[in-house]
Amino acid sequence: MTDASHPDALVIFTPSGKRGRFALGTPVLTVARKLGVDLDSVCGGRGICSKCQITPEYGEFAKHGVTVAEDALSEWNAVEDRYKRIRGLIDGRRLGCQAKVMGDVVIDVPPESQVHKQVIRKSATERVMAMDPATRAVYVEVAEPDMHEPTGDFERLQRALADQWQVGAVTADLSVLRRLQPVLRKGEWKATVVLHKGNHDAATRILDIFPGFHDGPLLGLAVDLGSTTIAAHLCDLTDGRVLASSGLMNPQIRFGEDLMSRVSYVMMNPGGDVEMTRVVREAIDSLARSIADEAGVDPAAIYEMVLVCNPVMHHLFLGVDPVELGQAPFALATSGSLSLDARELDLPSMNRNAQVYVLPCIAGHVGADAAAVALSEEPGKSDDMVLIVDVGTNAEILLGNKTRVLACSSPTGPAFEGAQISSGQRAAPGAIERVEIDPATKEPRFRVIGSDLWSDDPGFAAATAATGVTGICGSGIIEAVAEMRMAGLVDQGGLIGGPDQTGTPRSISTGRTHDYVLHDGTAEGGPLITVTQGDIRAIQLAKAALYAGAKLLMDEMGVKTVDKVTLAGAFGAHISPKHAMVLGMIPDVKLDHVVSAGNAAGTGARIALCSVASRDAIEATVHEIHKVETAIEPRFQEHFVNASAIPNAVDPFPELSLIVTLPDVSFNTQGSGGDGGRRRRRV
Amino acid sequence: MTDASHPDALVIFTPSGKRGRFALGTPVLTVARKLGVDLDSVCGGRGICSKCQITPEYGEFAKHGVTVAEDALSEWNAVEDRYKRIRGLIDGRRLGCQAKVMGDVVIDVPPESQVHKQVIRKSATERVMAMDPATRAVYVEVAEPDMHEPTGDFERLQRALADQWQVGAVTADLSVLRRLQPVLRKGEWKATVVLHKGNHDAATRILDIFPGFHDGPLLGLAVDLGSTTIAAHLCDLTDGRVLASSGLMNPQIRFGEDLMSRVSYVMMNPGGDVEMTRVVREAIDSLARSIADEAGVDPAAIYEMVLVCNPVMHHLFLGVDPVELGQAPFALATSGSLSLDARELDLPSMNRNAQVYVLPCIAGHVGADAAAVALSEEPGKSDDMVLIVDVGTNAEILLGNKTRVLACSSPTGPAFEGAQISSGQRAAPGAIERVEIDPATKEPRFRVIGSDLWSDDPGFAAATAATGVTGICGSGIIEAVAEMRMAGLVDQGGLIGGPDQTGTPRSISTGRTHDYVLHDGTAEGGPLITVTQGDIRAIQLAKAALYAGAKLLMDEMGVKTVDKVTLAGAFGAHISPKHAMVLGMIPDVKLDHVVSAGNAAGTGARIALCSVASRDAIEATVHEIHKVETAIEPRFQEHFVNASAIPNAVDPFPELSLIVTLPDVSFNTQGSGGDGGRRRRRV
Repeated sequence: MTDASHPDALVIFTPSGKRGRFALGTPVLTVARKLGVDLDSVCGGRGICSKCQITPEYGEFAKHGVTVAEDALSEWNAVEDRYKRIRGLIDGRRLGCQAKVMGDVVIDVPPESQVHKQVIRKSATERVMAMDPATRAVYVEVAEPDMHEPTGDFERLQRALADQWQVGAVTADLSVLRRLQPVLRKGEWKATVVLHKGNHDAATRILDIFPGFHDGPLLGLAVDLGSTTIAAHLCDLTDGRVLASSGLMNPQIRFGEDLMSRVSYVMMNPGGDVEMTRVVREAIDSLARSIADEAGVDPAAIYEMVLVCNPVMHHLFLGVDPVELGQAPFALATSGSLSLDARELDLPSMNRNAQVYVLPCIAGHVGADAAAVALSEEPGKSDDMVLIVDVGTNAEILLGNKTRVLACSSPTGPAFEGAQISSGQRAAPGAIERVEIDPATKEPRFRVIGSDLWSDDPGFAAATAATGVTGICGSGIIEAVAEMRMAGLVDQGGLIGGPDQTGTPRSISTGRTHDYVLHDGTAEGGPLITVTQGDIRAIQLAKAALYAGAKLLMDEMGVKTVDKVTLAGAFGAHISPKHAMVLGMIPDVKLDHVVSAGNAAGTGARIALCSVASRDAIEATVHEIHKVETAIEPRFQEHFVNASAIPNAVDPFPELSLIVTLPDVSFNTQGSGGDGGRRRRRV
Repeated sequence: MTDASHPDALVIFTPSGKRGRFALGTPVLTVARKLGVDLDSVCGGRGICSKCQITPEYGEFAKHGVTVAEDALSEWNAVEDRYKRIRGLIDGRRLGCQAKVMGDVVIDVPPESQVHKQVIRKSATERVMAMDPATRAVYVEVAEPDMHEPTGDFERLQRALADQWQVGAVTADLSVLRRLQPVLRKGEWKATVVLHKGNHDAATRILDIFPGFHDGPLLGLAVDLGSTTIAAHLCDLTDGRVLASSGLMNPQIRFGEDLMSRVSYVMMNPGGDVEMTRVVREAIDSLARSIADEAGVDPAAIYEMVLVCNPVMHHLFLGVDPVELGQAPFALATSGSLSLDARELDLPSMNRNAQVYVLPCIAGHVGADAAAVALSEEPGKSDDMVLIVDVGTNAEILLGNKTRVLACSSPTGPAFEGAQISSGQRAAPGAIERVEIDPATKEPRFRVIGSDLWSDDPGFAAATAATGVTGICGSGIIEAVAEMRMAGLVDQGGLIGGPDQTGTPRSISTGRTHDYVLHDGTAEGGPLITVTQGDIRAIQLAKAALYAGAKLLMDEMGVKTVDKVTLAGAFGAHISPKHAMVLGMIPDVKLDHVVSAGNAAGTGARIALCSVASRDAIEATVHEIHKVETAIEPRFQEHFVNASAIPNAVDPFPELSLIVTLPDVSFNTQGSGGDGGRRRRRV
């Protein structure tokens, strides 16, 4: 196939299928770039970074109509040898910058050599992540200064970035300029530069510079700032891997349990927002330190943070007084996305030049967290009519399909997160997370976080000795209330029966009402854990708010039912769909059409961290979402009042016929963790 | 001329001559915008700002072929009446936004209604200033929030700026976002917004926002940061007026008198640059406060600063270690212009969001101050071969004409600024600034800053009683040494004669050498002011360095003479061209071809402050200037050695035949301040 005067060869890449003819002697990396094949390189083809590994395929390829000879690529060279010796290289692999095309060849690009690699993780929030990060590192060789053609070191670095990486206008912070001269000289005019280019035609900024080739970590933090909890994922910006996940309580809780009480706090204490801003920023900064510590990396390697949160958290984090969000027309100071410097936000532990991207808000009550859920769950791409509920202190609710997406926010309060519950606590070892109550004996059994055993299993006490049984977390209280209702301990109105009605001494009187004793640890010096009448009321209010929001969107959409329910939120991964439906938290749908999306807001934050294109996408999407304002909608109050009762399998609530439509077997086949088969009781 | 169905009229603007036909009833401001006539408006045509004042012209205009009737514009209206009553309006003037075209009309736009007005000042550095500032204020009316179409207040402000002012993408700092909601509500959805748009396609930033129409000051600071002195002009960014000028000593002097001694300080004391950075930033900040105080304005109204300085000051101000500037190849960390936030530079007294523009440097030894001189003096537009000397602790020298411009820097040291001189002081009241010595009697007379009287005039003692005679400033020492030479007190080699040689008891012995007593104030408890042998040597070194630099550029240009010499620098306005040539500071040229440009670097800074286009211009110009490096050029040393002698009228130095070529009369006609006629003596 070669022409004697201008010998060339056919090069075919897999899996892309891209192909072309190139002069003999052309490096594979060069061929890949010319064909637009996705082959990574940090060092720009200098045999330093090894990101451009490829696997040549030999033999006959009938499909492609070529036969690849053993000498189709140039010989294994000293650079490859040295790399293999020092760092290791899988047999059969070559470095694309070193291997040259010498004949027709088929070249496979392994997934880890693709820039836009897609990584599958095995966490609860399993996700294929398209990599297109704003922050990346490149290696450059910079021209030395010349007295007769005087230009600054920075200008020669700019030129190198333009020539070697086709990077346009570049800016650098003073902290980078300050270090530029010693770094370039230490690296003998070779350097690794951390570049950041956000969306919206932002200029490229130099965030950091290292002498020579630097292969250190390049990290990002995806933060879901909730009213009650702050959750973060530490991600590798080169491949999207989650290195560590962590969370802590929002220290603003001391100013008010829920959003409106924090807004009220500011209304009553002008300037009170300043303190709330300070504590939440400190909390996020300490979270950055602790999560980096957990992953064994320097927090200064965190170059980017993506933040999602509801509007009140959004304003308080930014240092904007949230009072306008507490009164109609609920005007946001800004609804668009924000690109900020971490140091403007008093986040000193990350890299000094770390960049912060805040997702856009949808409306005054539907925040960047809802936008992140939309980015993660993509209701606007669904054929089914899907209801997405992000359960937190405020529930964000999305309803829609390909044709239209609606959104609202509903003030559930923190009960679902274990707050405002007498024995409530956050999800931590020792907290009751699963509950079953025998309908005949009214005796409970439970599991606590940190152990797979049930409380009536042999060895439970030993297995939980380290923590004891300390309280009830959000998913635990939902199960407890639902089980109490199914066991006949609580009536449809939510009243706990006395021992005379329930026939169990676990119903104890507290004067006018009764509590149900879930666990008495007092003999061992532990707590008495009860579900009180107040707890039931808190859960009733929370679930009624959630349900009313969903119904409001269904009214607006003109649908009576939905095809699918997605449960998201900090404890979305742990909530039991069955118990959620027993409680009437969500509308009637087949149980196997209820899926858990885990922390979808956090996943959305991670997507935005790994992909600049996704930022453009969600910024466009939020304009397409129609917002429904619960606070001024009379039907919301109506739905709320109607939804406060608790339906039951044996005493079905008319509007929620779910439980009767579900065959008994579904109780036994569903369930997370294989405990379904262990259920013995049911009517 | 009107068509009955679509009646229109001819509108002609003066002085632009722009014209067009417009429908009757069109406001004059609208017509001006459509024709691209330069008619100012801050409020966007709402009758608030009165910037769009115009003068209709009535009667017959043969030149334009129109006759303007008395009713060519709509009637004087209530808005104009109210404005005239409250704020005043010159008779015959109308508001362009109120007056509507009702017939053919000729409309004059007075200079103060032009956006790009040119203002002539009467200061020493008289200058026509083209206004095209990066920072401006606009008045907008913002849509109120709507719960059903939720967008943030910021997004509605962006929309208003786009619709009402055609401003593209706008960003705002958190400090602006924080104030946005209360400001918009206080102004009832009307606001005045301070916008900044630098060069290089920078995004437009909101620097400040005020409720309603705000007519407060919009100020900029032009700073010339020299090694010895820091000079600043406070300018009105709407018209370029200089409101106040001030200066102070560079506090870095305690780390080293000249540039290289400061670089050495850092070499000897690693980290010493941090302290130098701190003190110079503090000095500039305090200068901003004091100059604002002098002008009676709040320093927070300073929204922009333009800085010019030499490369070492540049790096020390930015916080970049200057050691590379102390050794070949004299590499700058960055040579390009810089656009920075004032708060990054620890300048808290200006507006929190103030922007700082630093002019580009030309080379490692030829800084942003030389670039500013080039911007001010424009050698590249000159038909004459012009030599521009910016005299300071380091002299920046430019030589060129339309075809080519060369630049170098020469280490004159601080003697020309009165430092390293035994009785030296900065230019301040009480400092001797003018000196004459009678060649017959060898008796001196002098003038001090703060009085127009000579020391032998009656009333001098009374006129200077407040300050006394305190020392000698830069221009004074140059005159003193030149006069000593002309009076025969000093020989060509620079040696002060003893009383036996000079015949005056003012020559006093100090052991091996002699001093000359200029003023003995000891009887009144004042100082003994002498010119010492050391002072002569310091001046000789300084002037030799300056002269050698100029000669080096002339060699490089291949010219033996220049057509014109421009003296610039902090004391450029005060230096006597005649004495400069007697000393041999500058090459031979006709005395009336020596002009003073005052503080040309400061003027360049002012130009950049008032015009974004000038920033593009100088950034392009610095690339065209050819740099000559004195430090490594053997001919520089050669010229330096040859230039240390002091020529004289009666004892002409061969290379500097100036004094003999000048007729006596030129001594009597030149001179600043009309003292020429008072000169009685000369050979």
